[in-house]
Amino acid sequence: MNGAHALMKTLADAGIEVCFSNPGTSEMHFVAALDAEPRMRAVLALFEGVATGAADGYARMAGKPAAVLLHLGCGLGNGLANLHNARKGKVPIVNIVGDHATTHVQYDAQLQSDIETVARNVSPGFVRTSQTTAALCQDAVDAVQAARGLPGQVATLILPADVSWGEGGQPCPPPPQPASPTADDATVQAIAALVKNGKKTALLLGGHALREPALLAAARIAAHSGVQLLAEVFPTRMERGAGLPAVERIAYLAEMAGVQLAPIEQLILVDAKAPVSFFAYPGKKSYLVPDGCSIHTLATPAQDAAASLRQLADALGASQTPPRLQAPRRPERPRGRLTAPKVCKAVGALLPDNAIVIDEAITSGLMLGVMTQGAPRHDLITLTGGAIGQGLPNAVGAAIACPDRPVIALVGDGTAMYTIQALWTMAREGLNVTAIIFNNASYSVLGVELDRVGAGEGGPKAQSQLDLHGPQLNFAQLAQGMGVHATRAQTSNDFCQALEYALAQPGPHLIEALVPESLAGAKRRVLPWLLKSLPNLPQPVAQALKRKIAP
Amino acid sequence: MNGAHALMKTLADAGIEVCFSNPGTSEMHFVAALDAEPRMRAVLALFEGVATGAADGYARMAGKPAAVLLHLGCGLGNGLANLHNARKGKVPIVNIVGDHATTHVQYDAQLQSDIETVARNVSPGFVRTSQTTAALCQDAVDAVQAARGLPGQVATLILPADVSWGEGGQPCPPPPQPASPTADDATVQAIAALVKNGKKTALLLGGHALREPALLAAARIAAHSGVQLLAEVFPTRMERGAGLPAVERIAYLAEMAGVQLAPIEQLILVDAKAPVSFFAYPGKKSYLVPDGCSIHTLATPAQDAAASLRQLADALGASQTPPRLQAPRRPERPRGRLTAPKVCKAVGALLPDNAIVIDEAITSGLMLGVMTQGAPRHDLITLTGGAIGQGLPNAVGAAIACPDRPVIALVGDGTAMYTIQALWTMAREGLNVTAIIFNNASYSVLGVELDRVGAGEGGPKAQSQLDLHGPQLNFAQLAQGMGVHATRAQTSNDFCQALEYALAQPGPHLIEALVPESLAGAKRRVLPWLLKSLPNLPQPVAQALKRKIAP
Repeated sequence: MNGAHALMKTLADAGIEVCFSNPGTSEMHFVAALDAEPRMRAVLALFEGVATGAADGYARMAGKPAAVLLHLGCGLGNGLANLHNARKGKVPIVNIVGDHATTHVQYDAQLQSDIETVARNVSPGFVRTSQTTAALCQDAVDAVQAARGLPGQVATLILPADVSWGEGGQPCPPPPQPASPTADDATVQAIAALVKNGKKTALLLGGHALREPALLAAARIAAHSGVQLLAEVFPTRMERGAGLPAVERIAYLAEMAGVQLAPIEQLILVDAKAPVSFFAYPGKKSYLVPDGCSIHTLATPAQDAAASLRQLADALGASQTPPRLQAPRRPERPRGRLTAPKVCKAVGALLPDNAIVIDEAITSGLMLGVMTQGAPRHDLITLTGGAIGQGLPNAVGAAIACPDRPVIALVGDGTAMYTIQALWTMAREGLNVTAIIFNNASYSVLGVELDRVGAGEGGPKAQSQLDLHGPQLNFAQLAQGMGVHATRAQTSNDFCQALEYALAQPGPHLIEALVPESLAGAKRRVLPWLLKSLPNLPQPVAQALKRKIAP
Repeated sequence: MNGAHALMKTLADAGIEVCFSNPGTSEMHFVAALDAEPRMRAVLALFEGVATGAADGYARMAGKPAAVLLHLGCGLGNGLANLHNARKGKVPIVNIVGDHATTHVQYDAQLQSDIETVARNVSPGFVRTSQTTAALCQDAVDAVQAARGLPGQVATLILPADVSWGEGGQPCPPPPQPASPTADDATVQAIAALVKNGKKTALLLGGHALREPALLAAARIAAHSGVQLLAEVFPTRMERGAGLPAVERIAYLAEMAGVQLAPIEQLILVDAKAPVSFFAYPGKKSYLVPDGCSIHTLATPAQDAAASLRQLADALGASQTPPRLQAPRRPERPRGRLTAPKVCKAVGALLPDNAIVIDEAITSGLMLGVMTQGAPRHDLITLTGGAIGQGLPNAVGAAIACPDRPVIALVGDGTAMYTIQALWTMAREGLNVTAIIFNNASYSVLGVELDRVGAGEGGPKAQSQLDLHGPQLNFAQLAQGMGVHATRAQTSNDFCQALEYALAQPGPHLIEALVPESLAGAKRRVLPWLLKSLPNLPQPVAQALKRKIAP
């Protein structure tokens, strides 16, 4: 049995069922081995960032890793941004990068490059170049084990062509199921004491702490002890909607996060890290925890968040306390000319049961959280690593992991263009994805950021770097060119009809929401939205905030 | 003056006139500084691979580097493949990668990653993170100097946001013009002696040795001394066509290259490396130089190839020998149903004067060399690093470097999809580019390679990884969605008309050549083409080759 065949069997035995691929010559034996393993589904992407982003979305929803197949250092480069997002989201991926035959490396052929250096950027915990066919399957098992432990990670296995084609492959048994250690008793007791000490306390939930079992335990604690629940700014996967505890996310804008965090005296981390600002700004602090607020950890990302929260609930006597759950509530259908907030409103009004919502809409999606808060329960996937181009590929993977659930991806126009090739894979695989593209013909967020970093308004050349007019993109045509049904919507009614149609008809659909506006308009729009997205903000605080970040 | 303004002035003073950019928040001060420097043109790309590939194409044609502006490690990842192609082509690029503020790095925010590790993959010779605003401009001058020396390279300057926004920037004077050392006398005399020793000798020309001055000197030597001229398999930039010396390129397929090189007893390298196969194949040699053939170096990539060749011509007494030049000769316009060879024929028939031809058509472009051999003189740009997705971005850069020359990019369908976003930049900048996409709905080359690596025909799952049907891409729609005029051609006549129209009308055009065929058909087609592309192959050799590589 050659290495590739043994590897394929080993991966399947270890529970890897899908390989998202963009192969080249050095991966041809791996590709040929696909037909020998009926348990392995191969999903072709036309660009590596689609393959890696799909593996990310798959693992977030399937709760286990997929494999990715990339072609040498350049393929890895193309896939790097979405592997970065997976790394930051602690998402397990078995990242297989084909390489030249070991005997060929010395000749520095055209595609030769140092793969390991690139891989370390996204796989600091596991990069291994398999050296022999005999060792390959154990290497693969080690990669699977590294990927799917807690915290999840991107494990990179570099696969030289001759290791793949060599005879003597020995399939290996799967690795042991990963352990799920929980918080130790002393920690639980110490945190319980903190919760009871009368200080203003918040649990900051991240990672697996935003899934239903953990949320319910956290909500019991909140109801029992009066602690506040906060969610990290960009969750890997958050279960939310009617019937689940509602948790306020920390805001993207450091100024707002500062307002949210200001009253807190004790912050207890549950599979989360102490909040820091996304970017640095001149004269502003990056570390967002207020002076005098103490930080404590109930569960690290290497520990079972839900079990640890249940332990804490037990210690507090909160195990039977009914949690406060979000009541069902939907906005009305929007009317009139379409705007970005109205798109969010329409999604809130029409969201089907059990949807998977992927939010990569940057400024245009700011109202999404509020508008879908009481919608039927759903999973929310967000941009964990800030590397835009995650949304459409994530949708591919989520739809493959959960074929019976509707997937709705809300994506900005600038963002969509990084991995637009994902649409083709959606069409080929017949995935139930509705991609909503906000076409405002700008990198809106940069218009805001230009101000925030103190670089001024920018002259015409600077402005042209943020502006996607001239020519304006036509996403409906792009989708049709890749075989995806698409419509453009300019009115709220058009949009609602298109969304209802897309949700009713199987297969992928793209709805291009035409929400044109100037950069200045975007800036004017952002502030009030932000204020509305924190509906419980006391009026004086809102005023202070307004003065602080008004353009 | 802040760092960004000082940097902008320093770059412009050093002769950097264009910045291909895809910026984010950490680059906003750089973007804002663009308006202060009228000598700097900023060209926005919607994906980083377009920016880096455009800088590559620009430098190949302008003979000097452009700057690239990328956003942190993920932006660098997205741009890596085309930086790799530039590295392999020894093309100068000043690669500026924005980073978080130095004070922000410790917080491991969402976009934090190790940029330097990734950069070393493409910039082994120069990676520097600028540490202070005061030092920034000297860092930039060092980067320019590193990039544009011989051999050219990708110099990566990592620019933390606070170094950019900090006050105290000090513009620096430009670096000295790079030196161009030539071969020393002893080497020239030794090579001259070899040329006269009666053995079968070839000059292998690469890099700058494929530009007119070097080609003419080499052709005088060939005419005088009977040496054969060969070109490296994937030239960075090759001047060719009527009135220039015709030089046979080494074939991509190792089997064919072996046939070309078999008779040679002495191979003299001029800005080239000894030929190796692109990939390794089981049981085949990677090093293509025949046993018993000796290797000698007239000029390394760090030396002036043209001057070194002129020295050799002098030493041989060949300086006045008339070189053999390619006679003008065009194929007829093709007729009937369109096929990939007929597209190449049409390009040969209609190629305008002084065109820039970019060949990334993989299997579909195999006849391009033969068909354009006697066409009006032109520059040919090829895929130097094997990382597909180079062609369309290269066309952007070449058209910006040479606004008065027609640019024709021939690109495979699979290949085009990696950096399809380049079309938008062509439209925005109004570039005179004709993009010809061969739509055969397959990764054809992989069908050939699957056989060649001994992985067999592949079952249905393997075949599906090479097949771009279901749905078939519509490149005309994709182009129109990005504002580029586009047509689809199914007949030779349609194609010729579309090409004539595109060449006559300013601005970008895309012609989608529908050349459908099965993978098996592609394989049947490749062999005869390859044989035809070496028209002087003796019949017995051709037969032997046929037996060797026939599927």
